[in-house]
Amino acid sequence: MQTVTIDDIQAAQHRINPHINHTPILESSLLNEWLGHRVLFKAECLQKVGAFKIRGALNMLLKAKEEGRLANNIVASSSGNHAQAVAYAAKLLGVKATVYSGQNISSVKAAATRFYGAELILSPTRKEADERVKQAALQPDTLWVPPFNHPDIIAGQGTVAADCFAQTGYVDGIFAPVGGGGLIAGTYIYTKAQHPNCAVIGVEPLLGNDAAQSVRLGKIQSLAEAPQTLADGAATLAVGNLTFPFLQQLDDIVEVDEKGIAYWTQWLQHLLKIHVEPTCAMSMHAVCRWLAGKSNKQTVVVILSGGNIDNLKMQQIWHTNHLDERPNILL
Amino acid sequence: MQTVTIDDIQAAQHRINPHINHTPILESSLLNEWLGHRVLFKAECLQKVGAFKIRGALNMLLKAKEEGRLANNIVASSSGNHAQAVAYAAKLLGVKATVYSGQNISSVKAAATRFYGAELILSPTRKEADERVKQAALQPDTLWVPPFNHPDIIAGQGTVAADCFAQTGYVDGIFAPVGGGGLIAGTYIYTKAQHPNCAVIGVEPLLGNDAAQSVRLGKIQSLAEAPQTLADGAATLAVGNLTFPFLQQLDDIVEVDEKGIAYWTQWLQHLLKIHVEPTCAMSMHAVCRWLAGKSNKQTVVVILSGGNIDNLKMQQIWHTNHLDERPNILL
Repeated sequence: MQTVTIDDIQAAQHRINPHINHTPILESSLLNEWLGHRVLFKAECLQKVGAFKIRGALNMLLKAKEEGRLANNIVASSSGNHAQAVAYAAKLLGVKATVYSGQNISSVKAAATRFYGAELILSPTRKEADERVKQAALQPDTLWVPPFNHPDIIAGQGTVAADCFAQTGYVDGIFAPVGGGGLIAGTYIYTKAQHPNCAVIGVEPLLGNDAAQSVRLGKIQSLAEAPQTLADGAATLAVGNLTFPFLQQLDDIVEVDEKGIAYWTQWLQHLLKIHVEPTCAMSMHAVCRWLAGKSNKQTVVVILSGGNIDNLKMQQIWHTNHLDERPNILL
Repeated sequence: MQTVTIDDIQAAQHRINPHINHTPILESSLLNEWLGHRVLFKAECLQKVGAFKIRGALNMLLKAKEEGRLANNIVASSSGNHAQAVAYAAKLLGVKATVYSGQNISSVKAAATRFYGAELILSPTRKEADERVKQAALQPDTLWVPPFNHPDIIAGQGTVAADCFAQTGYVDGIFAPVGGGGLIAGTYIYTKAQHPNCAVIGVEPLLGNDAAQSVRLGKIQSLAEAPQTLADGAATLAVGNLTFPFLQQLDDIVEVDEKGIAYWTQWLQHLLKIHVEPTCAMSMHAVCRWLAGKSNKQTVVVILSGGNIDNLKMQQIWHTNHLDERPNILL
């Protein structure tokens, strides 16, 4: 039995549509010429809060409101884009949000979370923050918004693909990063229901390849600690029991090393002129690998999932010049 | 006698309109809340060739074609966005472009110039490249496209303001960087003709403040050598005799130090999620200074002139973390 269907995604799309940005599809003529194919980019880095994450959070809260289940206290634990998404969504619905984070949350994301009106409670470690949210969720009049392992979140994230296909029409493949698996699961569900022949490919940093390992072994594998990867949005320790069955059905999960991640982040920032996270730029490595086996001209979509990058990551991305290296990685 | 009028700009707008991108107006709710005013950004970094420069080059070539003066050989000297603009415009019109640059042209800009079909001829220094283009311009069937000091270029760059006001309506101030002065002159001409009460303010790196010095002294001053500023698009050695009279009429020219340039480049990349050049991000320093004297809520426009940044500049921009420094520079 599927936990989430295309009907859930279409309902989510209808639900959140008035409240989100309609992000553009971008492309680069230079990149298309190099590849001999067409690559379309769904620019969710230009979404509210700078990431697709607002979709899942909004869907869950709006649905709860429709069903009379919305609480006055929304809680979540996150040190990333989910924190900002929950804060923004709660503010929109006029309820209080409390976000639990580890002390290592970037100051930029902390400031944005507070700007959107949430109370931010810092614990020494992320693990302790995760424990505190579980306790907080037991309080009365409280709703916990998990980052990925919930049907309403998966359906919300699936609206990226729904909006995207409405703009692009049929494409041959669609690529998205794999963190906890919410985005790629939603993408898979929508895409295969509408366009069964379109390949759906997940992308993961090699340093945090728990999803690829889990699929290889047929059982969810968990990382012992957060991997030190540029693709911090995909550094989740383990995928969820709701997302894993969809990961097992993907056409492929491609692992990308740190050099490939930095390389494509530089090139996409340069070619598309947008401030795009390494977590989604790395998908281009998978695109090139996939296209290498194709003789007919293909059109693919890359979901650019976010654009929130702190100073240290920017330094790491631009440390070595990759803008002279075109032939090596492309061919 | 004005060398360029609003009629020239409106003719240019009509002429180039079918061939250029209609770039969006962006804003940041966070920034607006901090400032207590509204700042609109005209995103010409999303323009063809990644900069407004395509407007002037296209206007000059299309006008020449209309008047039967288009040559089969287009020549220009540049190591920046003008090189790519001339290459792109010539390709569009089906004529040959030759661009003369110093050997220190960034590999990224060299690659883009060649991609657009121009022949790129490198000289040991930029000065020698400037000499070579003068010689080349003497050849038969050849048209020289200068970077700023030409009425058709000024009129073309003025179309940024024309397009912008069509999107925003009246604003209280408009801000643009000053390199050779083409963009700010065109902006001044259009703005003061349409909205005489709107302030027009030029912005320049303190390390290359020849325009501000020239205005102070009432005579064009030239820098001895290219200044080592992050704002490389405004590192021109001297303004032109056609642009200078407009610079003298600006409401202000604000000089920005390197820290302020890096600060605002980081913040605009982060807040707007676009890959924006230091040359235009520095305008925000002038915006803050100008707004500090205002008690009523103001709406201003910042022209984001380009988004072509090489690896070294990105390292310099992100070397020090400015994303924690909000109060110091804003207040």
